Amino acid sequence: MPRSIITLTTDFGTSDHFVGVMKGVILGLHPDAQVVDITHQIDPYAISEGGFVVAEAYRWFPKKTVHVVVVDPGVGTLRRPILAEAAGQYFLAPDNGVLSMIYAREKHKVRAVTAEKFFLQPVSDTFHGRDVFAPAAARLATGAALQDLGAALADPVRLPTPLLRVEAGDLVGEVIHVDRFGTLVTNLPREHVAPDGRVRVAGHDLPLKATFADVGQREPVAFVGSGGALEIAVRDGRADVVLGLSRGTEVRATARRS
Amino acid sequence: MPRSIITLTTDFGTSDHFVGVMKGVILGLHPDAQVVDITHQIDPYAISEGGFVVAEAYRWFPKKTVHVVVVDPGVGTLRRPILAEAAGQYFLAPDNGVLSMIYAREKHKVRAVTAEKFFLQPVSDTFHGRDVFAPAAARLATGAALQDLGAALADPVRLPTPLLRVEAGDLVGEVIHVDRFGTLVTNLPREHVAPDGRVRVAGHDLPLKATFADVGQREPVAFVGSGGALEIAVRDGRADVVLGLSRGTEVRATARRS
Amino acid sequence: MPRSIITLTTDFGTSDHFVGVMKGVILGLHPDAQVVDITHQIDPYAISEGGFVVAEAYRWFPKKTVHVVVVDPGVGTLRRPILAEAAGQYFLAPDNGVLSMIYAREKHKVRAVTAEKFFLQPVSDTFHGRDVFAPAAARLATGAALQDLGAALADPVRLPTPLLRVEAGDLVGEVIHVDRFGTLVTNLPREHVAPDGRVRVAGHDLPLKATFADVGQREPVAFVGSGGALEIAVRDGRADVVLGLSRGTEVRATARRS
Repeated sequence: MPRSIITLTTDFGTSDHFVGVMKGVILGLHPDAQVVDITHQIDPYAISEGGFVVAEAYRWFPKKTVHVVVVDPGVGTLRRPILAEAAGQYFLAPDNGVLSMIYAREKHKVRAVTAEKFFLQPVSDTFHGRDVFAPAAARLATGAALQDLGAALADPVRLPTPLLRVEAGDLVGEVIHVDRFGTLVTNLPREHVAPDGRVRVAGHDLPLKATFADVGQREPVAFVGSGGALEIAVRDGRADVVLGLSRGTEVRATARRS
Repeated sequence: MPRSIITLTTDFGTSDHFVGVMKGVILGLHPDAQVVDITHQIDPYAISEGGFVVAEAYRWFPKKTVHVVVVDPGVGTLRRPILAEAAGQYFLAPDNGVLSMIYAREKHKVRAVTAEKFFLQPVSDTFHGRDVFAPAAARLATGAALQDLGAALADPVRLPTPLLRVEAGDLVGEVIHVDRFGTLVTNLPREHVAPDGRVRVAGHDLPLKATFADVGQREPVAFVGSGGALEIAVRDGRADVVLGLSRGTEVRATARRS
Repeated sequence: MPRSIITLTTDFGTSDHFVGVMKGVILGLHPDAQVVDITHQIDPYAISEGGFVVAEAYRWFPKKTVHVVVVDPGVGTLRRPILAEAAGQYFLAPDNGVLSMIYAREKHKVRAVTAEKFFLQPVSDTFHGRDVFAPAAARLATGAALQDLGAALADPVRLPTPLLRVEAGDLVGEVIHVDRFGTLVTNLPREHVAPDGRVRVAGHDLPLKATFADVGQREPVAFVGSGGALEIAVRDGRADVVLGLSRGTEVRATARRS
């Protein structure tokens, strides 16, 4: 029987006690949990950034993994904690749209987590990572029945979908993430981009190659990234700096003819 | 039998090999240890900051957890390694006052850790995290008798207690921590603050609310934080920046009448 | 039977999904793996920095530990993934010289990792940490035979060795790492430095002491560091800033007479 995996994605940073406290609560309830940090470096309150990172990560975890996502500017308000089932895995998060990319991609079922007996009491107004999400994750991982956490919810909050349209033979989308290397990740899916086409962004006309190693040093290039979407990089440099681009920039690629 | 938990709180950062080496030593002696990072981002040599973080964290861990705290500007001098027992848990640290907040809060017993057989030999002059604290923690977690580590110590080093006094109906304390979100944590305990009073800091007169979500965007607010002390935040902003405050700033709140 | 340890040393940072994804892949294949982060803060593409950190770390891990090192500017090119056996442990890395310090120090055997059945298919051009190194590490830790990963390789890539020579009674080397505290780590080995000699660097003449605590506040000092090589620090300060030095600076110490 493998130990249960619980992942954490938060905007808590790693300089305070917050993440350690969540792990203490989890291990107190479930000593055999395998707790995995996805990241705690989401910019404070950046819901869509947190949503991107967890959406890139979950596919590589085994079935029944419990993913805890706490990017929660509304903590202490009436926003609900939710449990989503999707792709054979579980997601615990505030109902603020942070799971939108997963809803868009996977068949899913969402519940409001209302069972107070699963929370640490009294529940604070400012640290639901500790009082709500960590204990609910531990109990879920130790076998709590889903229906005991709360009832189904028909209308979870969804973030606006990033721009994606076809226009004059071009697929038009946007930069949705800038990674550690300065690489720009777009929302243009591999299956809709012409493999022999061009990519245009902010006045730059870029070749589409298999990988960034296919161009010379410091040259910009587009390629299909490891997540299956178009990415823009500069070989051995930072595309965000060299091209002066950031999240939200429009990107055009020749659309694949179906 | 749950695996034993060993937590790490250091100023080692995460860019060098230091933390990985401590984990290698621990796992070499105790392959089933569950090692949990509290933080390694304590500012170099910032003893009271390290003391704050571990004091906020330990309460959420199960009994018998071993907490290793290495913020140790005096490594290589005659300062002693110590083992404190408090709240059913264990704390291994240099005797430099880093455990002061725990001594102030919990019944405790302190020992000097002198048993050289528990250390890696030869003990270096600069990395007691590896040579002293990691192996002592692993042996403690695998069942070493406390008295075998060393004899009781009557006079562990204590840091000066932060200012906290009552003056003309006000409880007067100070900012003792600035967290990742720019929230200012004070040493004013919930039970001594009037719930319907006001909070004054550096010329600002702040409302006392249940949580930061109870004021408008970018407004400052005081509330009882998740650790049980008064905190000062700016909704969706950084209180340290907006209010221009930092560690050590005096804070006044209406005192609760007993 | 202790669980198997797999360590990770990368330049992936901790703000993206990369490290979490590698752990998901490892745990999916090997649920009992004990995954230990050495660091993910290697500067992007800094092969020799990654090589230094893993070379300092591995000695403190138990036999049979699998070390995964992914600092890989050539991902997607023809550079080979390799498996090195050294010191009773295993190292999986791209063949770009990142293991040079280990080759220099230990008897070693290197294989090209060519067995596609150990990889996630299809292998991407940009994320071999996920598709090649993580699954190969998990399979190695669960008992795959070494020869099944690939054939021996006689000529792995080696980085140029840092300068180290004897000149007029001096041992002359260089700064090979600056750590979190601003301490300068050199390549001058303890056994070749005269213990009662002097150290000269960039016009500074420094005393050689047992540890940095042996000089006054803010004074520079040389000592043998915890890794066995000469280091230069400033007590309670940053030697890199105070002395204006960085990686590659020449350092001279009185050579020990043999």
